[in-house]
Amino acid sequence: MNYTYSNKGICAARGFRAAGIHCGIRKNKTKKDLALIVSDCDCSAAAVYTANLVKGAPIYVTKKNLENGKARAVIVNSGNANTCNADGIEVAEKMCALVEKHTGIPACDVVVASTGVIGQPLDISPIENNMTALVGALGYDNSSDANQAIMTTDTKEKSIAVEFTIGGKKCAIGGIAKGSGMIHPNLATMLVFITTDVAISPEMLEIALRGDVEDTFNMTSVDGDTSTNDTLCVMANGMAGNTEITSEGKDFEDFKSALHALTSEMCKMIAADGEGATKMIEVRVSGALDKTNARKIAKAVACSSLTKAAIFGADANWGRVLCAIGYSGADVDVLKVGVEFISEAGSITVCQNGAGVPFSEELAKTILLKDKIIINITLGDGDATATAYGCDLTYEYVRINGDYRT
Amino acid sequence: MNYTYSNKGICAARGFRAAGIHCGIRKNKTKKDLALIVSDCDCSAAAVYTANLVKGAPIYVTKKNLENGKARAVIVNSGNANTCNADGIEVAEKMCALVEKHTGIPACDVVVASTGVIGQPLDISPIENNMTALVGALGYDNSSDANQAIMTTDTKEKSIAVEFTIGGKKCAIGGIAKGSGMIHPNLATMLVFITTDVAISPEMLEIALRGDVEDTFNMTSVDGDTSTNDTLCVMANGMAGNTEITSEGKDFEDFKSALHALTSEMCKMIAADGEGATKMIEVRVSGALDKTNARKIAKAVACSSLTKAAIFGADANWGRVLCAIGYSGADVDVLKVGVEFISEAGSITVCQNGAGVPFSEELAKTILLKDKIIINITLGDGDATATAYGCDLTYEYVRINGDYRT
Repeated sequence: MNYTYSNKGICAARGFRAAGIHCGIRKNKTKKDLALIVSDCDCSAAAVYTANLVKGAPIYVTKKNLENGKARAVIVNSGNANTCNADGIEVAEKMCALVEKHTGIPACDVVVASTGVIGQPLDISPIENNMTALVGALGYDNSSDANQAIMTTDTKEKSIAVEFTIGGKKCAIGGIAKGSGMIHPNLATMLVFITTDVAISPEMLEIALRGDVEDTFNMTSVDGDTSTNDTLCVMANGMAGNTEITSEGKDFEDFKSALHALTSEMCKMIAADGEGATKMIEVRVSGALDKTNARKIAKAVACSSLTKAAIFGADANWGRVLCAIGYSGADVDVLKVGVEFISEAGSITVCQNGAGVPFSEELAKTILLKDKIIINITLGDGDATATAYGCDLTYEYVRINGDYRT
Repeated sequence: MNYTYSNKGICAARGFRAAGIHCGIRKNKTKKDLALIVSDCDCSAAAVYTANLVKGAPIYVTKKNLENGKARAVIVNSGNANTCNADGIEVAEKMCALVEKHTGIPACDVVVASTGVIGQPLDISPIENNMTALVGALGYDNSSDANQAIMTTDTKEKSIAVEFTIGGKKCAIGGIAKGSGMIHPNLATMLVFITTDVAISPEMLEIALRGDVEDTFNMTSVDGDTSTNDTLCVMANGMAGNTEITSEGKDFEDFKSALHALTSEMCKMIAADGEGATKMIEVRVSGALDKTNARKIAKAVACSSLTKAAIFGADANWGRVLCAIGYSGADVDVLKVGVEFISEAGSITVCQNGAGVPFSEELAKTILLKDKIIINITLGDGDATATAYGCDLTYEYVRINGDYRT
């Protein structure tokens, strides 16, 4: 399949309008803090959520609203996670009711999400007082505004879209994300909203989403902490006019491929903009006994604080990669492990058969000084592969998180 | 039981001599890098090792030598982990043979350990050339020298001893440790050598050790990485003259209590001196459903990068504690969770029934600015308790690990 990438985000697909404004949840008036996404017609919708037992109140409301596999709007605030508050669910429900009041879309078709500080009551007033402005700001080319409004410690927008065809019909799928901190694999994701004009049933959308996250958002780690509010929601409004995908087959495979083309790039963007990160780290594992073992190894290396700090220092300390492979819990023959560092500056083999090989420290440094580093791990156990996305551990991560609230 | 603590370390128990010298594995001539511990007579011995699949070569040799539950000497070097080297086992065996050659203690009764960089061949020459000096330096009051020789990025010695009585006989148990980085719970420990003059069979020593580490070294975390070389070895030479402990009973309980009195303090010392740490964090959990759940929660909070960074910043961001409890994998009613911060400056309740309570930010700051912080977590699920030991995450951790090798 051929894809055309663009930065149109959630407005790449036909019939989706977006808005992002400053309503006053955040003190900084230049920072947008309220986003709205609206489809021109009803959508199939599917979502995955954090595996954290402590869940943000909006997650309970969104889950309930998505029970019928349908949605038409998304409202999101940043600056406050609406989590661990006595009135959290009530406030999240009010946010949906406000969307109904101002757009006519039933509250039960609204996805709601919040991100920010945990444990501080979320005042509904700034949202209520700015709903008219929010709805007034909706536009078919405003993905960037909505993206800005959901960002927390993110330094860059994460907005991307893919265009492709299904059954001869031109389709688009696009998304926006906020990431940065509290990102850990296998426990859903961060805040990600994806829109598409593909016609697909809620059931097949759910299957596509659940399959995809195993190889993408669940393989992305910034700091090993799993947020209470992680939500990834996909809405498909069918406006591309393709024959609705209601079962497996070529169209479904094409949709899954396009979804993966989008989400794998989003994961790289999230990892690259991890809190304090100076480098994106992609850990590729091949030759593993099976998929489970491949994933365990890729994740352990991407999550290792010591490996992350070494990459920050452009130090080819491959012993830490071996160490992480060893404690990953994977079934692996450590005497067959090979390790290679790759970047746009070149590639260098540093370990073969589980032992070091002589290499040029100078070349290794040159390679590791680039901002996208691939740690390529070859095993001799089978033919399974996996990729994990992470970032380096830096002074800035500590600074950001040493004083987040105050 | 009453204990008298001292800093006599491995020389508190009768009949143990120690030495630590600079032999040249490290370039810095002021840094000791080779240690020897020798008992005047044969000892019961037991050890636990890293769960990492990538194991240092010395671990294979030590395991073999301890198969009969007996040992009489320990040789350890720092500056090189002798791990992931093609000739690693051969070099580790040579270290034991050198002890035999210079002390007459059979090589098969020698415990060997190495710590330092992974994947660089360990040259035996500096060790071989300095064995006479090492043996000549042995003394009954040299615990500190041996401790210095096993330190890597440690900033402080971790040497402590406890005196007590068993069956009316005066006994001692003492230890030295190196910790600092690559310390993660449930996967054995760091380098710890414990000596005692208690008479106890190898079998009972093994049982006591395995039981104790579950609540001590396996509950201690610095950075979530598990070293390849972790070894904790206890040697008991029986010179206290008590009736040998060969089964359960009061004497065994007394020994276990004394061991725990020693190891729990050692864990606090290791956590407090974690790489870059400015604060020791003790996470106490009570009211858990059972021990397994209590441990999961205590460890998750002690290991949370976000909680650790918040404590570094003296930021009472209790939401991160709740978040870690939520993703710990424990069976817990999050609506019954209470959180309190405690230090020598006082205590403050910040969360009750899973939600925030109003508190003085000023008092919280005063409490969190101290260097020993207790995070007290109360649950409403049962009556099980657990404690985990950790430290804050600081700029210095990143600096140390961004350029460890070069």
